[in-house]
Amino acid sequence: MNYAILCDMSQHIAVDIGGTQIRAALFEDDRIIPSKIEKISTSGENPALDRLCGLITKIWPKNEPVSAIGIAAAGATDPYQGVVISAPNITGWVNVPLREHIQNCFPVDVYIGNDANLAAIGEWKYGAGKGHHHLIYLTISTGIGGGIILDDRLLLGQQGLAGEMGHITVLPDGPMCGCGKKGHFEALASGTAIARWTINELERGVKSSLSKDKTITSRTVAAAAQKGDHLAIEAFDRAGHYLGMVLADFLHLFNPTTVILGGGVSQTGDLLLVPAQKALQSFILHPQYLANFSLTRASLGDEAGLIGALVLARSGQIH
Amino acid sequence: MNYAILCDMSQHIAVDIGGTQIRAALFEDDRIIPSKIEKISTSGENPALDRLCGLITKIWPKNEPVSAIGIAAAGATDPYQGVVISAPNITGWVNVPLREHIQNCFPVDVYIGNDANLAAIGEWKYGAGKGHHHLIYLTISTGIGGGIILDDRLLLGQQGLAGEMGHITVLPDGPMCGCGKKGHFEALASGTAIARWTINELERGVKSSLSKDKTITSRTVAAAAQKGDHLAIEAFDRAGHYLGMVLADFLHLFNPTTVILGGGVSQTGDLLLVPAQKALQSFILHPQYLANFSLTRASLGDEAGLIGALVLARSGQIH
Repeated sequence: MNYAILCDMSQHIAVDIGGTQIRAALFEDDRIIPSKIEKISTSGENPALDRLCGLITKIWPKNEPVSAIGIAAAGATDPYQGVVISAPNITGWVNVPLREHIQNCFPVDVYIGNDANLAAIGEWKYGAGKGHHHLIYLTISTGIGGGIILDDRLLLGQQGLAGEMGHITVLPDGPMCGCGKKGHFEALASGTAIARWTINELERGVKSSLSKDKTITSRTVAAAAQKGDHLAIEAFDRAGHYLGMVLADFLHLFNPTTVILGGGVSQTGDLLLVPAQKALQSFILHPQYLANFSLTRASLGDEAGLIGALVLARSGQIH
Repeated sequence: MNYAILCDMSQHIAVDIGGTQIRAALFEDDRIIPSKIEKISTSGENPALDRLCGLITKIWPKNEPVSAIGIAAAGATDPYQGVVISAPNITGWVNVPLREHIQNCFPVDVYIGNDANLAAIGEWKYGAGKGHHHLIYLTISTGIGGGIILDDRLLLGQQGLAGEMGHITVLPDGPMCGCGKKGHFEALASGTAIARWTINELERGVKSSLSKDKTITSRTVAAAAQKGDHLAIEAFDRAGHYLGMVLADFLHLFNPTTVILGGGVSQTGDLLLVPAQKALQSFILHPQYLANFSLTRASLGDEAGLIGALVLARSGQIH
């Protein structure tokens, strides 16, 4: 008897529409390493929808069925309607009925979600969140995004706009956020915020090994901090402090068993995590919230969104 | 044929352990007006547990079965274990296995929840939240509490400690909260906060019709505001502003269709709601969050917690 026949031999396609590129990957059986992967730039001469269909065609298996397609998109999405409300990185993508378009090209079910939400699902199913039922995933890079899983379900809200964690107000009179409002979490603890605060301090005349650098990014600040530069260390202490403060709010609101930190900035490790842990402990209302709780780092890296899109396709539901 | 026999003729008992009194009520069929209600003080000579069992005995129906008991308790509760972690108003109630105690006295299932969480359930099932699947209930009185319902389920988190909305940090260097931390939502928008801010302004020499009052409470401030007193109006404007700011955060996190405001302070109506609406609109990230959304007042008044406890008993589950 061929036992392989009894297994789930179906194939699924996952797509990640990111900041600069669109990736499509084919996954066999229950694997999370793709058997085929192709990518294109988000910008190009032909319309992005046509190029996306071309990309999927490129990895479509010959003579073998595909069960479903899952798509992670940067920007606001409506997973119920399968619509990309706005994709900041693709010109003209406002209220694009992406699911309908893709289903017109390919005869399979299509599921769509916000990339940070799907990264949360990816980490929950196959990454650092395996086995957790209540978790928060935060990605800290140039911006801050994330997803919230409660009772093993993604928090979507009425239109799929829930979990917009980067834009909660932390310091009402604080620095301007990229969105145009003041004092958001993202304006205080993202990579952009760390770099900007450091530049402001340098302009104020604070001495630092970074003074001679022409380009200051959170990466150069992290490198300087790791060499002991006081200003650079303070920049991460400050971001970590606000991170810990917001984490306390999230623990009070969601009472999760873990918060998973992804994104480039959180990969600096202790530089951000030590002040965050300290602030979390000082802001938490009751030690019970920290019982059976862990603050941990993501394990799927840049693949989390793609893997999350795969989970959608495999589960056959938006959450 | 007697159709009544086919209906759910079962009886349920709901208990509300509040700040100053404990109430127990008997509910018949699917009614939400109790057929019997009794109350006692939270303090007394005999242990509160014995007195609570006595109270339930008093309303227990003769020769008719009771299906289940639901209990709403002020303070931190673990609904999974049926334990009252801390009840600030009952001396010595720390980690009380309330479910076990009550089940030892009465041969029925017992369900326990935090009173603000259960008020959310009450409003969702029988009050201002009927028909909503994603709602937030906030009670604004001397303190601020509430409950969050997502996809028709109460948000509890891993230990039932989720939804602690009064103690999120809104102004890191703001006024001291009753819990000992700074700048919490409760320290800025509760009745206590409104009264305290007004007293501070009067002490600073600000002129107001309230200057001659010996006792300033949010109620006297509301009365003065309704007569046009500038300081009193400013006190509510300020509280409403912070309320709207926090509501924007909650909309970004939960994307609900309604926020229901309960508690004495929110009954002042426009005084608080107009500045709250204004702030909500200015802090919201995208108008889409306000589409199909309403900010409304609770309809069950002080009965919400008791009714929520009834919903637990009737549904036979903690959420």
